[in-house]
Amino acid sequence: LDERAMEETRRRLDRLTKPPGSLGRLEELAVQLAGIAGTSELAVVRKAVVVMAGDHGVCEEGVSAFPQEVTGQMVLNFLNGGAAINVLAGQAGADVVCVDMGIKAQLKDERLISRNVRAGTANIVRGPAMTREEAVRAVEAGIGLAEELAAQGVGVLATGEMGIGNTTPSSAMLAALCGLEPEDVVGRGTGVDEAGLVRKREAVASAIRTNRPDSEDPLDVIAKVGGLEIAGLAGLVIGAAANRLPVVIDGFISTVAALVACRLVPAAQAYLIPSHLSEERGHRLALGQLGLDPLLHLGMRLGEGTGAALCFPLLDAAVQVLNKMATFDSAGVSES
Amino acid sequence: LDERAMEETRRRLDRLTKPPGSLGRLEELAVQLAGIAGTSELAVVRKAVVVMAGDHGVCEEGVSAFPQEVTGQMVLNFLNGGAAINVLAGQAGADVVCVDMGIKAQLKDERLISRNVRAGTANIVRGPAMTREEAVRAVEAGIGLAEELAAQGVGVLATGEMGIGNTTPSSAMLAALCGLEPEDVVGRGTGVDEAGLVRKREAVASAIRTNRPDSEDPLDVIAKVGGLEIAGLAGLVIGAAANRLPVVIDGFISTVAALVACRLVPAAQAYLIPSHLSEERGHRLALGQLGLDPLLHLGMRLGEGTGAALCFPLLDAAVQVLNKMATFDSAGVSES
Repeated sequence: LDERAMEETRRRLDRLTKPPGSLGRLEELAVQLAGIAGTSELAVVRKAVVVMAGDHGVCEEGVSAFPQEVTGQMVLNFLNGGAAINVLAGQAGADVVCVDMGIKAQLKDERLISRNVRAGTANIVRGPAMTREEAVRAVEAGIGLAEELAAQGVGVLATGEMGIGNTTPSSAMLAALCGLEPEDVVGRGTGVDEAGLVRKREAVASAIRTNRPDSEDPLDVIAKVGGLEIAGLAGLVIGAAANRLPVVIDGFISTVAALVACRLVPAAQAYLIPSHLSEERGHRLALGQLGLDPLLHLGMRLGEGTGAALCFPLLDAAVQVLNKMATFDSAGVSES
Repeated sequence: LDERAMEETRRRLDRLTKPPGSLGRLEELAVQLAGIAGTSELAVVRKAVVVMAGDHGVCEEGVSAFPQEVTGQMVLNFLNGGAAINVLAGQAGADVVCVDMGIKAQLKDERLISRNVRAGTANIVRGPAMTREEAVRAVEAGIGLAEELAAQGVGVLATGEMGIGNTTPSSAMLAALCGLEPEDVVGRGTGVDEAGLVRKREAVASAIRTNRPDSEDPLDVIAKVGGLEIAGLAGLVIGAAANRLPVVIDGFISTVAALVACRLVPAAQAYLIPSHLSEERGHRLALGQLGLDPLLHLGMRLGEGTGAALCFPLLDAAVQVLNKMATFDSAGVSES
């Protein structure tokens, strides 16, 4: 990041009519945005939530409260504007960009961006989710999409996802990348009961035992126990950083994607903006791995990018504080 | 609150295309707003941040990093639109209503609502802050103002305050109301150094020793160790409840005001909406006394209503989720 722009932003913030640092994370956001933009002259920018969708073979193991066809049904709901992410992105003036990274159903809709690498992953309990080559293609698709959105004038991205069953591969990836136990990283996802939770833990343990992902090789982790939309989001994060765009990270699945991205490209970490703390069990651990401290504590567990979209107004607020507040001098206020 | 409207709202939320309860606090907010409004047919409403200002005799003890004249200077800054609260309320489409509850300087400005009860409190280290009659008048002024704003069509209030030195009486009030030690409730306010922190703790201990406020008598606590803007905000909270308006509670000082309000009128508690968790030491304790769990974790410590204003978009989001999301039926999405 641009240290000079960050320092200039800190100096400007300290001249504004407030005790130095008293706007806390809002001031830190302004400094980070300036570092990313390379200037302390920040503007409110166009925003997009990129919702990537994919299906998961591990649904065979009964790891989700919802049937697998809901992935495609919800994508149609996104396209028709009826889902939570449409409402919340709309409130924040952000676009929703829907991407098919690997949905099982064939959806024909011109509003859907097709980057379908394969029609869902294989069941990770029985073998690898995908080939390494497919993992690479999915990550590259995400990188390319960030590049396209940057070229279209989008100034900040947020990650979102839809994929029935996708907390299970996310937990497996987190366990594999960080050497954690299934008990610590497996939660209830969309709301499985106690028996479902046991099945999820067993699925994660068994997926790792069967596939032996290499914790030092993020692409191997994706290919062995990952998901197509998770890989795509990892690429999106890398692409955001490569194009100097801040990227707001949603909940558990998105945070695991960001973790993979930063293992592949450590420099991407400076471009991450955390959003909410999810109810999903492994989220706090995943955030901790990235050194991220969530801004919103709303007990949400929906995904889709909903928590990230709710943070957009905070980014705008940080920019407007910098741009619109009076200084001690201009307002004639005495300093401490 | 209207239990029927709340139950109807819960039913409506559970038909929307998301796992039941997965929007967490956003769903709880929608239910609370419906209970307050008495209907599940919610609308995005007009919002106002009420910033009450007053001066504090205890500034003589060197408890603030800023000189006392900053209270009046900052009120002029509010009126001229240059403060953080102007920017953040503006971002949320909310009005800023400035009220002189007891500023020492005589400010003549038609945009300032004058409810000046006295020109600042007396030094609580030496004796009572104000008379009991003055405390009653300040609380009543706040009640009346909530009534006026409700009559003008404002649909949700937020509390804000300005008063150099006002974390000291707030800490004293919290200690007196809850039987807590100065060490637990005194923090750095706008940013005093270690010596200043020691002076604040001594001032709080000494104010309680000198005045012996009656913990069972909230008006006695206000009169003995309180502040005029804090009393006014307590009244505002009571008035909000009386007029069936939700009221978003800002940081430490506002939360102490809400605590006093709920000691006076316990039914007011159901109308409170928490906002952020302040950096100020006593805030978590004060929130806990009210059973409030903050939505934003931004490390802020500015006051003025800034944390509350940042929560307004979350209220709008809760309303729009209820109004705009598709149902499982309408979107053709399978249920769990």
